Parts: sequence; C-alpha cells; structure tokens
Amino acid sequence: MAWWWWDEAVVVAAAGGTGGSSGTVVSICVFTAVLCLCLVVGHLLEESKWVNQSITALLIGCVVGAIIFLLNKGKKSRILRFDEQLFFIYVLPQIIFNAGFQVKKKQFFHNFLTIMSFGILGVFISVAIVSTGCCWLFPKLGFGDLDAIDYLALGAIFSSTDTVRTLQVISQDETPRLYSLVFGEGVVNDAASVVLFNAIKNLDINRLIGGVALKVISDFLYLFFTSTMLGVTIGLSTAYALKALYFGRHSTDREVALMALMAYLSYMLAELVDLSGILTVFFCGIVMSHYAWHNVTESSRITTRHIFATMSFIAETFIFLYVGMDALDIDKWRTSETSFKTSVGIFGIIMSLVLLGRAAFVFPLSILSNYMSGSCERAPITFKHQVVIWWAGLMRGAVSIALAYNQFTFSGVTLDPVHATIITSTISVVFFTTLVFGFLTRPVVSAMLPQHQHQQQSTAAASGGGGSTGSNSPKDDDFFTLPFLSPEEEASGSSSGRGFLQAKRSISMLLERPVHTVHIYWRKFDNKFMRPIFGGPLPLSP
Amino acid sequence: MAWWWWDEAVVVAAAGGTGGSSGTVVSICVFTAVLCLCLVVGHLLEESKWVNQSITALLIGCVVGAIIFLLNKGKKSRILRFDEQLFFIYVLPQIIFNAGFQVKKKQFFHNFLTIMSFGILGVFISVAIVSTGCCWLFPKLGFGDLDAIDYLALGAIFSSTDTVRTLQVISQDETPRLYSLVFGEGVVNDAASVVLFNAIKNLDINRLIGGVALKVISDFLYLFFTSTMLGVTIGLSTAYALKALYFGRHSTDREVALMALMAYLSYMLAELVDLSGILTVFFCGIVMSHYAWHNVTESSRITTRHIFATMSFIAETFIFLYVGMDALDIDKWRTSETSFKTSVGIFGIIMSLVLLGRAAFVFPLSILSNYMSGSCERAPITFKHQVVIWWAGLMRGAVSIALAYNQFTFSGVTLDPVHATIITSTISVVFFTTLVFGFLTRPVVSAMLPQHQHQQQSTAAASGGGGSTGSNSPKDDDFFTLPFLSPEEEASGSSSGRGFLQAKRSISMLLERPVHTVHIYWRKFDNKFMRPIFGGPLPLSP
Repeated sequence: MAWWWWDEAVVVAAAGGTGGSSGTVVSICVFTAVLCLCLVVGHLLEESKWVNQSITALLIGCVVGAIIFLLNKGKKSRILRFDEQLFFIYVLPQIIFNAGFQVKKKQFFHNFLTIMSFGILGVFISVAIVSTGCCWLFPKLGFGDLDAIDYLALGAIFSSTDTVRTLQVISQDETPRLYSLVFGEGVVNDAASVVLFNAIKNLDINRLIGGVALKVISDFLYLFFTSTMLGVTIGLSTAYALKALYFGRHSTDREVALMALMAYLSYMLAELVDLSGILTVFFCGIVMSHYAWHNVTESSRITTRHIFATMSFIAETFIFLYVGMDALDIDKWRTSETSFKTSVGIFGIIMSLVLLGRAAFVFPLSILSNYMSGSCERAPITFKHQVVIWWAGLMRGAVSIALAYNQFTFSGVTLDPVHATIITSTISVVFFTTLVFGFLTRPVVSAMLPQHQHQQQSTAAASGGGGSTGSNSPKDDDFFTLPFLSPEEEASGSSSGRGFLQAKRSISMLLERPVHTVHIYWRKFDNKFMRPIFGGPLPLSP
Repeated sequence: MAWWWWDEAVVVAAAGGTGGSSGTVVSICVFTAVLCLCLVVGHLLEESKWVNQSITALLIGCVVGAIIFLLNKGKKSRILRFDEQLFFIYVLPQIIFNAGFQVKKKQFFHNFLTIMSFGILGVFISVAIVSTGCCWLFPKLGFGDLDAIDYLALGAIFSSTDTVRTLQVISQDETPRLYSLVFGEGVVNDAASVVLFNAIKNLDINRLIGGVALKVISDFLYLFFTSTMLGVTIGLSTAYALKALYFGRHSTDREVALMALMAYLSYMLAELVDLSGILTVFFCGIVMSHYAWHNVTESSRITTRHIFATMSFIAETFIFLYVGMDALDIDKWRTSETSFKTSVGIFGIIMSLVLLGRAAFVFPLSILSNYMSGSCERAPITFKHQVVIWWAGLMRGAVSIALAYNQFTFSGVTLDPVHATIITSTISVVFFTTLVFGFLTRPVVSAMLPQHQHQQQSTAAASGGGGSTGSNSPKDDDFFTLPFLSPEEEASGSSSGRGFLQAKRSISMLLERPVHTVHIYWRKFDNKFMRPIFGGPLPLSP
C-alpha cells in the first residue's frame, strides 16, 4: 500500500508493527527525534576523553530500545525494521563518497602502496583466517551447518573495520603518515570488504572445489579496476563541465546540485553495469575533490565539504543508533536457540579470530613496507605505530552489520536459528568492540604515542565532526583564511614551510624507490596536463 | 519485492515497466543523467532573456519522453511512475522549508497583512470562482459526472500558483515591496492551497449541503494556526539548543545536521498530529533563519543557505522534468475518451477561470490594501504593479500537478476516463502557462516596469539559483564581506543608509496604521526579549 511503502522508504527501515500508517509515522518521528537527541548528547559528551558519537548513539539506542521494550510490555523493542538494500543504496554511498571526498590525497597517494596492501591484501588475509578459523572451530562447539559460502561471508563480515574512533585520537599534524595510513586503510577496507563480499556471494557453489580463491581474486581485481576507471571518468567529466561552463558565474546551487547528482549517478551507473558502486563513488569522490572542487565558487566549496560530511555523519549516527535499538530485539535472541554457553563460545572464537586475523597482516605488511621504503628518508612504521594501526582496525561497525543482515536475513528477518545466532553474534561483536575497544582507544593510543597526551583535548574537539568527517572540521578556518589553498597543502599542515619540505623530500624521493618515482611523475603529469584541463591550483613555481 | 520497492522509493516514482530490477536501475540512471543535463542546459541558457530552469526542464523532459516513446515503438513514453505520496513527503517539504528559510523577513512582515490577504483570501476567492465556474460550464460541454468534492478540488488545484518565473525578472532592489508581495504570496499560496485541498478532501460528502464553506474555513483556520504554532515552537527550540550549546565550537556538521533533522521532524510531527506539515515546516524555516541561523558558525550559515536552496532547486527541476516526460504518456490521453474539441473546451474554460479567478482578488485586495495603508508614506500598489502581481500568479506548477494526481489518480494511475481527462487538462494548463506565459513574462514585466530594462541581464544572472532560491545567490558575497549582517539588513539592500531610512520610516509608521504599530512593537519585543534568548543580531543603538 502506497502510504506504507513510502513510509518504509523514509528511514531505510519500516515500522516494526506498531500497526497502521500512523504507527509508521510515529516510528519516523521517534527515530528522527532520537537522532536529534544523539546529536545533542554526543555534542555535550564531546569533552569527555572516553566516548564519541558512535558510542553515544549505541548507548542511547539501547536506552530507547529498552524504553520501547517496556512500553510494549516485553513484546517488542524496535520500531524500525532494517533493510540492508536501502542501506546499500542510500546510506553507504554517502559515507564512502564523503570518505573519498575528504581523503587527504597527498598523504594518501604518498602511502598508496602501503595503504592498498593493508586495505586489500589485509582483507584477503583476514578473510582467509576468519573463515578457516570459523569453519574449523564452530563444529567443535556443535554449532552451525553453514556452507562454504556462509563461512567466506563470515570472513568478509568480520574483516570490515571501523577506524573512526582511532582517527579521533590521532593527531594528523604530529603523525601525518600514521593518520593517513589508518584513514586510508579504513576507506579502502570498507570498499574492499564490500566488493569481496559481493564477489563471494556470486560464487558458484558447485565450482567451489576448484580454484575458488583464484575466482574470487580475479573477480575482485576485475571489479576493482573497472569500477575505479568508471569513477575516475565520471569525476573528471564533472570537473571538466564545471570548469568549462563556469557555473559559479550564475549559481552556487547549480554547482552543488551537479556534483551531488553526478556522484549518485556514478554509483547507480556502476550498479547498472554490475560493477562496485562503492568503489566507483569512492574514486569519484577523490577525483571530484582533487579537480572539480577547485572549479566552483568559494561558497560551493564550503557547502560541498560540509554537506557531504554532514550526510555521512547522519548516516553513521543513524546506523549505530539503529544497532543500539536493535540489540534488544528479543525476537532474534529467541530465534537463535543456541545456549548461552555456545553463544559465548562463538563470540570468543570470532573475537580472537578478529584479533589474530588483523595481527596476521598488519605487522608483516608494515615490516614489508618499511623494507620497501628502505633508505628513503620517510619515517618507517615503528612498532608502536604498527600496534596503533592494528588496534585502529579492531572496531567493527555499520558495514559488518549491513553485510551480516544482507547474508543471513531476508530484509531484516530470519527464522533460521543458526542465522539468527550469527546476527546476534555480529551485533555482540560490534557492541563489544565499539564500546570496550572504543573506551580503551584513547589510553592505548596515549601509551603508544606519548607526545599525544597534551594534544588530545584539541584533537577531540577537532574531530567533533564525527565519522571520517571529523578531519575536515578543523580546516574550516583555513577555508576562510586561505581560501585558495589546495587540499594537498592543507594535508601537509597548511604551512609553506612544510610545503617546501615536501618539495625537497619529493626531489630526494625521485632518486628513491619506484613507488615514489611514480608518484613524482604523476604529480608532474598532474600539474602539466590534468590540472590545466580539469582544474586545480597550479604550482607557484616550476 | 524489496529490490523493487527501494528502487521505487529512490526517485519518487517507479519504473514504468521496462521490466525487472535492472529496468528500474536503468530508469534511475536515465533520470539522474537527464537531471544533470537539465542543470547544464539550464545553465547555458541562463543568458537568454526568454527561458528559465523550469521551461528548460519541461522541454528537455518532452524531448526525452519523445525519444523513449520512439525507442519503445510508441508503446510507452515514460520510465517513471509518479507517486504523489512521495512528492508530499520528500519533495514539497524541501521546497516549502527553503521558501520559509530564504524569505526576506523584514519585507515579508512589513507587508504581512497584504501578503496574507493575497495568499489566503485570494486562494479562497479563486477556489470559489474556479469551482463554481467548472461546476457550471463543464456540463455544458457534456463533460464530467464529477461530485462536489471533485469540483472543489479542481478549484484548489488551479489556485496554486508558481511565481518563480516572475521573481527572476523583478529586481528586488528597485521594487523591494513588489518583490516581497509576489514572493510572499507565492509561498503562502503554496501552503494555503495544499491546506485548503486537504481540508476539502476531509469534507464529509453528506454534510456538504449545510455550511460547507464554514466547515472548510474553520478547518482551514484551525489547521493554519495550530500548524504555525508547532512550526514556530520547533524552530525556537532548535535556535535555543544551538545558542545554548554552541555547537559550532566542535563541529559545523552537527549544526547543519541538527537544523535539517529538526526541520524534517517538524514536518513529520505535524503530519503525526494531523496538522499541515507544509505550514509547520514553512514557519519552522522562517524562525530558523530568523534566530537559529545566527547561532551557528559562518560555514554552517553558508552551508545551510546553499544546501536547502540546492535541495529545493533539484526538487523543482525534478518535477518540471517529470511533467515534461509525463506529457507524452499516451496511456493517459488514451484513457481520456473526450474528443479533441471537448478537451480544448475544457482547457479554455480552465484557463479563462484561472485568469478571471486571479483578477477577481488581486485588484480588489490591492485597492483595499492601498486604502488600509492610506496616508502611510509607503508607496501604494500602483495599477502596473497590480498587473505584475496578477501576471506572476498565472503560472501553474508542481503543486497543481501533485494535487491533481493526488485527487484523481491512485499513485499515478487512473482508469476513469473523466479523471484521466482532468489529469491531461492539468498537464496542458501547466505546460501552457509555464511555456507561453513564462516566455511572455519578461516582456510583460518590462512593459509594466520600464526601469527594469537595463536591470534584466543582471537580475537574470542573479536569479540563476532557480526556483524561489534565486534570490539568495547574489547575496553570496555579502555572506563573505559582511558575515554578521542580518538577513533583515540584507533584505533592505545591505546599505546602512537604507537601514537608517527603514528606522525613520518605522518611527513614522508607529503613528500610522495598526498593522505597522503591531510590526514595530513586535520588533521592539524581538530585540528586547526574543533575540537575547534565541539568537540573532542585536540592534547597534537603541
């Protein structure tokens, strides 16, 4: 019924049966109101060293869930039904596009290989470990008649990280490289785990015996490169249109509208041709912020920066709030018939596999990367930094939930006890990691990076933006004082001194490892050909 | 099926049967792409004296519709099905909220009574004339076994105006009063016609005989005042929260998110308690821009201004584009079995009633208003201005379409030939008024306001924002050069000279008509009590 479905559409979820259309409107009102409450409370708790937006949303979600639970006399605790389809169409693209849009490109491309190895190889390793681990240990608990696909899916679900919390306590001025490694891995990991998850879902169960790994990897690589190309193409065409037509002359609104629509178009086009919309929209975001962003009016720059950040901020808060409310949904706990002991066992297994699976690639790959950089004067990734990187990726978040729902429920509902158990375990893991690890993050980081002690307050404040967007809030002033400063320069600290340092460093690197040579050549090419065509600040002096 | 309905939700409409989910994705891609095309073309045609965004969207919609029509070998011409439910939930609130948010409040409240009489009395008069006219003339054409409700609905449908086009060619610096009258009437009219339409729908057919008018009016007034109060309350609480908590200290994103969410919450709350969400969100917008807007960071101000404008801009373009594509939908034309002659007759009747119904209140009410203002030194509404006001409201737009669909179709489809005829007539009227009157607007205004001749180019450029948002684009620079300037001052031309003039004028008006006395007292009260609590610039000197 029409009235029903537009309501269901409104909040990426639908009324949990409060009954009738008015019930749905009630749900939406409650949810919107609680979302506002989250913003206010999260803002008030900003000073505290311990919590952040995600934790606030989770806890508030729990409380609201409990209240609803009591109001309904224990019958139900949630007013919204999760629809992971809507999540993947509405919510995730915003988060990913914003991640690409806000990424500090200079650092990102500087550490490109390291980030990619963490983000992609890392996911593969982690998936392999988690999958095999579950496949080997679950039966020992007498749990789970899951098939291979399910186990692989489990691997993907628990390999997608949520690095927001750590980003809020690392100072990107003191340790720019560490920051960009954590941030970069975070976004690449988001994309990679989703793409890998889809590749796994598309596996033909019958051909699993032979060359499954190969199939997955080839699918993955194909998806990765084609999607990237599509995203870059659309991003460049947007940049060119904005530059050639000079929209700003007439209207800021038109510029903003065009950028937003093109971003969404890139996502839908990718989905249309069965590519990964996530990757496409991510690289579309990178290209847009690298070229298109420089072709628009000052107002448009500020507006786009903030609106994409805000949308992704709302999206993330929404998810954690939902997970919080959903945690008390007794239906699921009831459906899963596993004993408390077994549940704890499963939880323990998954947690240890998560810890292990992450350690299994962070430390080796860091060492490899250090070796690669070799004599290059870039600071190597110290062991303490490796620990921070390892820790940063232990949190599990929205993507894990969405993937779990996607694999083990049909639009939020499952009647299979085993699947219900996996959902509940996923929720528990997300809860535990977000809350406990979230609380511990600041102490851990302080222990590993002592010089951060005095920094924390300011950093916490700076990261108020929440989500992967926090990193841009402190730059607001730069937008005003240095309106024509390119994000690259901002990335390296907005000080010409650093800028010069960067240049000097670049020259030295030119004689160094291939990666950097490539990077240098790219930048030459970028300055000489790309920027004149697609926009962007030109180097002051050759 | 889940995949289906989220797609349907994505674009306020659904696949017209290209078949299957991929078909839906195709529709979305095509529509998004065409939307982008509209932006670009509309931008390129900006210089032309003749067209504007709406006209561009209409024409492009037609062309695309024709292409699809041919591609489908004449079977169908549209890829989207209109769902007016989604229109009222997603699209209209954005447009109305933005209208309230961008309204130039000083002028608006200065001319409050005149605007209200135009917007509300005007709608009533126009509805009465159109309804009775149709009720009397349709049967003469041997058309229509419509019941009383349908005729009243027709009145409401053809009483909602679309003043965008005229606003783009009136200079608000040369004729601020005229501008604010046209703009103000436009937004009040939007709200009034929707509210009246709903009041009519809720009429009990049986009690129609006795006191129908009274019932409608009382319902209307009840809705109007309660909804207004709700909107003001929510707007004020948002302002207070923003001021008391000083969100900007931590994050711009949070401020923007809170404002957007509260605006949407106001709409949903109103719907929840069966009030008019439109009116609520409109006054919520006014209050937010009057108080809340002053409590946020500079970035937030720019972001909110532009993002609300952009959303409403996209929404309006979307509608006109849709109408354009829908015009060629042969199903409707086929369903309506009326002969060409009859159709033309109906079209002629409606058009003449629209012209008459508008003339019937613009000129009398203007004269009344002039008499009311009497010796007040404010310029009276000259006859030429009256003609401009009359002309400005002749265009019919998105709201008419949406109301027509809402009354005469079930989620975009109708099998009743009579209803189909009314839909097609509505589309014809919207087309004719938007295109023909739209083209003629500039000449007409030039003829009435000769001093505009030299102004037009700049004004056209200024109004590039499209929709009711155009008026804020030219203020972009003010936001930078005079960041702490209140919209009121901007409204009166951003020059302290004018400001002083305003003050002097106010004093004189204090001894004048009651309206202005009220206005003055209100401003005193505002400066003394409201602004200190809820935010906003305080007067420099008593």
